[in-house]
Amino acid sequence: MKKRNCFIGQSGGPTTAINASLAGIIAECIDTKQFDHVYGMINGIKGLLEDKYMDLAEMFDNEEAIKELKCSPAMYLGSCRYKLPTYEDDAQTYISLFQTFEKLEITDVYYIGGNDSMDTVAKLSTYAKIIKSPIRFIGIPKTIDNDLMGTDHTPGFGSAAKYVATSMLEVAYDSSIYKLNSVTIVEIMGRNAGWLTAASALARTQYSDAPDLIYLPEVPFIKENFLNDIREVFKKKRSIIIAVSEGIKTENGEFLDSDSKYAKRDAFGHILHSGTGKVLETMVYKEFKCKVRSIELNVLQRCAMHIASQVDLDESFEIGRYAVKTSMAGKTGMMMVFNRINNNPYTIECDYKDVSTIANLEQRIPIEWINKDHNDITQALYDYLYPLIQGEVPLSYKNGIPEYVNINHLKQD
Amino acid sequence: MKKRNCFIGQSGGPTTAINASLAGIIAECIDTKQFDHVYGMINGIKGLLEDKYMDLAEMFDNEEAIKELKCSPAMYLGSCRYKLPTYEDDAQTYISLFQTFEKLEITDVYYIGGNDSMDTVAKLSTYAKIIKSPIRFIGIPKTIDNDLMGTDHTPGFGSAAKYVATSMLEVAYDSSIYKLNSVTIVEIMGRNAGWLTAASALARTQYSDAPDLIYLPEVPFIKENFLNDIREVFKKKRSIIIAVSEGIKTENGEFLDSDSKYAKRDAFGHILHSGTGKVLETMVYKEFKCKVRSIELNVLQRCAMHIASQVDLDESFEIGRYAVKTSMAGKTGMMMVFNRINNNPYTIECDYKDVSTIANLEQRIPIEWINKDHNDITQALYDYLYPLIQGEVPLSYKNGIPEYVNINHLKQD
Repeated sequence: MKKRNCFIGQSGGPTTAINASLAGIIAECIDTKQFDHVYGMINGIKGLLEDKYMDLAEMFDNEEAIKELKCSPAMYLGSCRYKLPTYEDDAQTYISLFQTFEKLEITDVYYIGGNDSMDTVAKLSTYAKIIKSPIRFIGIPKTIDNDLMGTDHTPGFGSAAKYVATSMLEVAYDSSIYKLNSVTIVEIMGRNAGWLTAASALARTQYSDAPDLIYLPEVPFIKENFLNDIREVFKKKRSIIIAVSEGIKTENGEFLDSDSKYAKRDAFGHILHSGTGKVLETMVYKEFKCKVRSIELNVLQRCAMHIASQVDLDESFEIGRYAVKTSMAGKTGMMMVFNRINNNPYTIECDYKDVSTIANLEQRIPIEWINKDHNDITQALYDYLYPLIQGEVPLSYKNGIPEYVNINHLKQD
Repeated sequence: MKKRNCFIGQSGGPTTAINASLAGIIAECIDTKQFDHVYGMINGIKGLLEDKYMDLAEMFDNEEAIKELKCSPAMYLGSCRYKLPTYEDDAQTYISLFQTFEKLEITDVYYIGGNDSMDTVAKLSTYAKIIKSPIRFIGIPKTIDNDLMGTDHTPGFGSAAKYVATSMLEVAYDSSIYKLNSVTIVEIMGRNAGWLTAASALARTQYSDAPDLIYLPEVPFIKENFLNDIREVFKKKRSIIIAVSEGIKTENGEFLDSDSKYAKRDAFGHILHSGTGKVLETMVYKEFKCKVRSIELNVLQRCAMHIASQVDLDESFEIGRYAVKTSMAGKTGMMMVFNRINNNPYTIECDYKDVSTIANLEQRIPIEWINKDHNDITQALYDYLYPLIQGEVPLSYKNGIPEYVNINHLKQD
């Protein structure tokens, strides 16, 4: 029987759940008994171009190892921020990649990532069709931003949302202790989509209202309204907590921190924000002369496995398995997606969509899920979000800290 | 039989474990059956001066309620940042407080807090002796900074240390994924004592070296050495992670961020730092022109109950119980302390010391627990730290977030 080997790669920014998808793909590849080798690209497509890969099937041939991988943060295979050139611009890159695929007798390639990674899947599958290669390319979504089109939500989002909601609750308790007027601004990741900032609303309980105000990038940020909102809340309480997306923009579409000295760009030219909270801190202090503090939740949002969502890890694992089933059924150029069947009881199914119709689009919060004052979310968005943060992951601890998978291979040259 | 009533207060900054001490005091007060009323000051001594207090014994008369309080972050009774004036400067404040104590037939006052709170305990117990009042004043330490003298360590430190170590490990995994030179600077709380920054070393495992370098406020920060240290680490690896205390100082004793626009002061005039990481970020970028990022762990260090240390919560509870036993034995003007009997197996005992010999002193890391290059800790400090972060706290979750105690009483005027 002809050999069947596959490649798995990870790309883009890390999430808490991206290794769960990797674990799901490996587990299904092993279970189908169709593969001789399950290779992992080290540092994504870019690493593969430098011939960096490893054999995964042997390393994860038991349930214990699969479970440890599933419950480890960041990216076991490493990542790259690499925009695959078009075939027209650079044919050699494609030729080189397909030579490697051929040499290793690859039949299936699974690529886990965000929008830029789906762009890679779309380009490679299109090229394969052109050259009549039978290799199948399958995209598995991940992003804490939840901004990929075509899927109810993205793997990794639920865990980030649970971290944000839990941290917001704890910050609210922390802020409750002094009898003085104060404003705490919590800056949350999200370039153009406010899903993660919206998830801070899940921190609300019968004992804690925080966040009192929520500002999302889907609607323009208007300074006067913002200061008025705070003024209104101060009429009712002393300690105000505000959730704000790093990517909020003025009516002219300018990022609030675009003139901040912290504004930076990543390899794709996207602006990396890290000054919005500080900009608002100054704005609030000037107006109210009260205690103001800004907190940037930072990278913990995407790597805090210790407070991951069990629903998210389980779904991320299952969508990995489903990717293998999909390519086994002969599909290519597809991104795996979730369809939500029901909110209560929460039910989803895995499905797939043509990746070329999805890549490079952004799914943002529907305007009807944002309140009229543009400073909070509506019940429909609560209903959408709640199921995604359910369940706690029982980690193994050693010497007081979580036990995560061996990543020493990422340190080699 | 004459009525016996007591007061409990909390003061200073919050920690994850300060409510565990409150729970321990309440539990012991109930168990002794000696008290008619267990009152809680709302917002500490300052709240009491405004006649703000509540009855605690009824509310926490069952194991379930005590356990929920023990596992809730921040401060159930609220806090104040209030420096009690000396008797010579302001006799009226003392007269007013003791009138309240007399009116409520108070025999014992328990005050949970850091250095400034212990100063309050020292002053009140001294005043009581002067006016021949039989009221006993007992201090229960807490601080994530671990900088109180006379005790092996402070309640609250272990949980903060576990949060720092766990987060550092997760940041290390997050930073491992790209194949490029990068420096990640993690700024950790600690004004003059580097205990919490040192605890970041507990993140090290067989798969992760981070932090590669540790800078503590106990030794001078020398820019040339710092840049040389980084240069040396770059010879061995790509992704460098640095743990730095917010309070590091130059050889002249100046805070690194003293000219930063973020430098602020609290009510006691202490400088509140929040710019050290940013200052170093700029310094490193100028020298190495590589990817540099700074992460401020911020208030989550002191309120992240979801990753608290079980050892810390249990000890904080026990030291609360011991405070009641101590005042029942007729002691006053004492701070509760831990004596460490053994590291392996880890054994401590509760004890007490004269608070006036302890208050306003700072316990810093002994120089022999810092390596010769002043960029790491020694084995003795590991041995000291490890026992304090052991054990995970099984929290109750509801709707995906932890269930914490009712704090609605803090919102009233």
